[in-house]
Amino acid sequence: MEPVTNKVYHSWNVPSSQFAKNTFNPIRSIVDGMKLTPNPEKDMIALSIGDPTVFGNMTLPDEAEESVIESVKSRKFNGYGQSFGIEKARAAIAEYSSKEGYKITAKDVILTSGCSGALDLCIACLCNPEQNLLIPRPGFSIYKTLAESHKIIVKDYNLLPNKSWQVDLEHLESLIDDRTAAIVVNNPSNPCGSVYNKEHLIEILNLAEKYKIPIIADEIYEHFVYSGNTYYPIASLTETVPVLSCSGLTKRFIVPGWRLGWIIIFDKNDVFEAEVRQGLISLSQRILGPSSIVQGAVEGILAKTPQKFFEETIEFVETNAKLFYNNIVRIAGLHPVMPQGAMYMMIGIEMEKFPEYIDDVAFTEALVREESVFCLPAKCFQYPGFFRVVLTVPRDKLSLACDRIAEFCTRHYSDVGSGGNVTVNGTN
Amino acid sequence: MEPVTNKVYHSWNVPSSQFAKNTFNPIRSIVDGMKLTPNPEKDMIALSIGDPTVFGNMTLPDEAEESVIESVKSRKFNGYGQSFGIEKARAAIAEYSSKEGYKITAKDVILTSGCSGALDLCIACLCNPEQNLLIPRPGFSIYKTLAESHKIIVKDYNLLPNKSWQVDLEHLESLIDDRTAAIVVNNPSNPCGSVYNKEHLIEILNLAEKYKIPIIADEIYEHFVYSGNTYYPIASLTETVPVLSCSGLTKRFIVPGWRLGWIIIFDKNDVFEAEVRQGLISLSQRILGPSSIVQGAVEGILAKTPQKFFEETIEFVETNAKLFYNNIVRIAGLHPVMPQGAMYMMIGIEMEKFPEYIDDVAFTEALVREESVFCLPAKCFQYPGFFRVVLTVPRDKLSLACDRIAEFCTRHYSDVGSGGNVTVNGTN
Ligand SMILES: Cc1ncc(COP(=O)(O)O)c(C=O)c1O
Ligand SMILES: Cc1ncc(COP(=O)(O)O)c(C=O)c1O
Repeated sequence: MEPVTNKVYHSWNVPSSQFAKNTFNPIRSIVDGMKLTPNPEKDMIALSIGDPTVFGNMTLPDEAEESVIESVKSRKFNGYGQSFGIEKARAAIAEYSSKEGYKITAKDVILTSGCSGALDLCIACLCNPEQNLLIPRPGFSIYKTLAESHKIIVKDYNLLPNKSWQVDLEHLESLIDDRTAAIVVNNPSNPCGSVYNKEHLIEILNLAEKYKIPIIADEIYEHFVYSGNTYYPIASLTETVPVLSCSGLTKRFIVPGWRLGWIIIFDKNDVFEAEVRQGLISLSQRILGPSSIVQGAVEGILAKTPQKFFEETIEFVETNAKLFYNNIVRIAGLHPVMPQGAMYMMIGIEMEKFPEYIDDVAFTEALVREESVFCLPAKCFQYPGFFRVVLTVPRDKLSLACDRIAEFCTRHYSDVGSGGNVTVNGTN
Repeated sequence: MEPVTNKVYHSWNVPSSQFAKNTFNPIRSIVDGMKLTPNPEKDMIALSIGDPTVFGNMTLPDEAEESVIESVKSRKFNGYGQSFGIEKARAAIAEYSSKEGYKITAKDVILTSGCSGALDLCIACLCNPEQNLLIPRPGFSIYKTLAESHKIIVKDYNLLPNKSWQVDLEHLESLIDDRTAAIVVNNPSNPCGSVYNKEHLIEILNLAEKYKIPIIADEIYEHFVYSGNTYYPIASLTETVPVLSCSGLTKRFIVPGWRLGWIIIFDKNDVFEAEVRQGLISLSQRILGPSSIVQGAVEGILAKTPQKFFEETIEFVETNAKLFYNNIVRIAGLHPVMPQGAMYMMIGIEMEKFPEYIDDVAFTEALVREESVFCLPAKCFQYPGFFRVVLTVPRDKLSLACDRIAEFCTRHYSDVGSGGNVTVNGTN
């Protein structure tokens, strides 16, 4: 490298780094590229936004608000804490996340800026450039965004829509190689709303154990399961596989903006002790942890929010899910997959029955144009041919959206070329 | 790469990534390596912690507390905002940071998790691996931590203690080469407490302009200057050099835990328009911005905190600075450099007068052991032979600390080997 003291620079040219260029959110580029012009005759209904607060019908528990006010008023939480979180908050989360026979202590908890921050730390800590990370397809886009910016290679393992989005274990296994650094398991799932049973989680764990690959569990929808389903933290089902579980207040307490997430280190055999634990702590020092105001409130939020709050939230979303499902399943050409938890439903489009549209993006664009209903094309989740709806919308909007989707489909459904003999069952 | 389906993995071995290993805070490793055993006869006085809230004597403005409570109670700031910050908060910061002839708009503001988060985004966005970043010596350690984790090379440019820590411009220029991606300018400075005048800032800008290198201005201590000094945002003094200015609520509003920082993009000639602006926005999507509760409060905090609050804070710190300086300057073997702003003072140790101690680390260790006074060895700032004191401590502690430092130095001062003729002026 030459010193350039004698050169003259004539013009400014300041590029951004590869890291910035590779920090790329596929949803943004797909949605920004869509022509989203609603029908001026009809009010827009956005079934696209994974923010349960936007419609005003779902709000945080009063206890959460009160806990924050107490935290601020106490003036005890204005200073720097440990970069991985103040003891009191970590202890409260440890208690909240412990179960019988499954004890977590404050030292196994790392606080982060939302679950996104937790995933960022876990992925950046476990994977080197050119190693690979296995992620679900369909799946939440942030894993890819975070990993690829670090030149970590992502490989999508398939989920099976007709098995309630269970993991295609054979496919998952076929992707594992010498350079596989971790497996991301998202349960309950965005965008699928699937909730895995014990047996299936153990099957996944067995693969991880066979190849000695740690798991990053995205459990931000923990406990958010509909009646008849049970949520198991994947780490609770293994004695050997080390797991970094990522969660936070975001979804269950309906406070996505607060940016309080966490990692729980499950590591019964001290696999992470040599390096990973310290690595996560080092990474937390980059931005010194989430806001102390919320940290100071966590204990109160977790202890005081009544069970009733969660029950009502889930009941509302579950009822929406059923309503939506029952309406959509009757529409010819659409194939909803009933979720078991979280806040979303995936709906398959029989694309050949809608020959006007080349793909799920064109289909959902037309749905906006004609019916002012915006659903996210599942291309955003690496899964073209489906679209995703959010289930947190007020009931009247949801019913109206169903009617409009039905009308749209009836109008555009075409059986030409399919060989006939089609049952258009009860589209309106 | 071979699929490993047929291999058997016998044991777990999960290393952390290079990125995690390279995220390394030199202060932590120095301080953790120190033997810090206070004298049991004397209460510990920590002059080491750059957190103005720890002693309880300095607290946030009431208006800040009230604004947060209002923000929470409004229930308007619980959802996801734009990842680079909600409009209302960015607009308020733009107004706060605008001056006559120097107008900032909301679109030029990016909210981050503290000033650390701002620096993280700027460094990661402007520099590629193997490029270099010029940083001040002595300087705040985070620039090195953030840069080196991305394999960006840091080069320290010297500050001149006997010119009030102005930049050694010749040295700075000698470090610039083809691969210099940015220059970090920290004004007012940690650990020096220096405040640069207009002329000096223009000299720095001229170098940046000559080589067409953008500036990352760490201005977290903006406005925090003692009487007789004026703070100039470096960007206000140039028509051509693009500047990313990093600041936040942390220091001026005495709320380091709140983690609300920002970047202001100064770019009169659209140099950052091609890529950098988008790069910063992309990077903000990794963790989706700082806590919405504080974002919702920013407008109130900036508008309502009375001038009197800032004046009283600075007056208190400035009086401490003078007191400290006047006490220390009389101690043989110590050479304080009077600061002009911020919250710190650097003190040179004439090491040959303290032959018992091999360096500033050993010296400050002994000071803890004998006098229970903990000052940070300036090795932490790449500047051995000095130590740093924080000036936010309660006055009685400060006086006591001065007395103890004087006693310590008198006890250990030794003129042997220096050729005699030494004036030990008024050590006690
Ligand atoms: C599966 C999944 N993981 C992580 C996140 C991010 O959560 P947070 O807002 O806490 O960063 C989301 C948000 O929608 C999500 O759906
Ligand atoms: C010079 C300098 N820059 C940045 C920071 C980080 O500020 P924040 O706590 O807002 O991340 C500090 C904190 O001490 C500092 O001294």
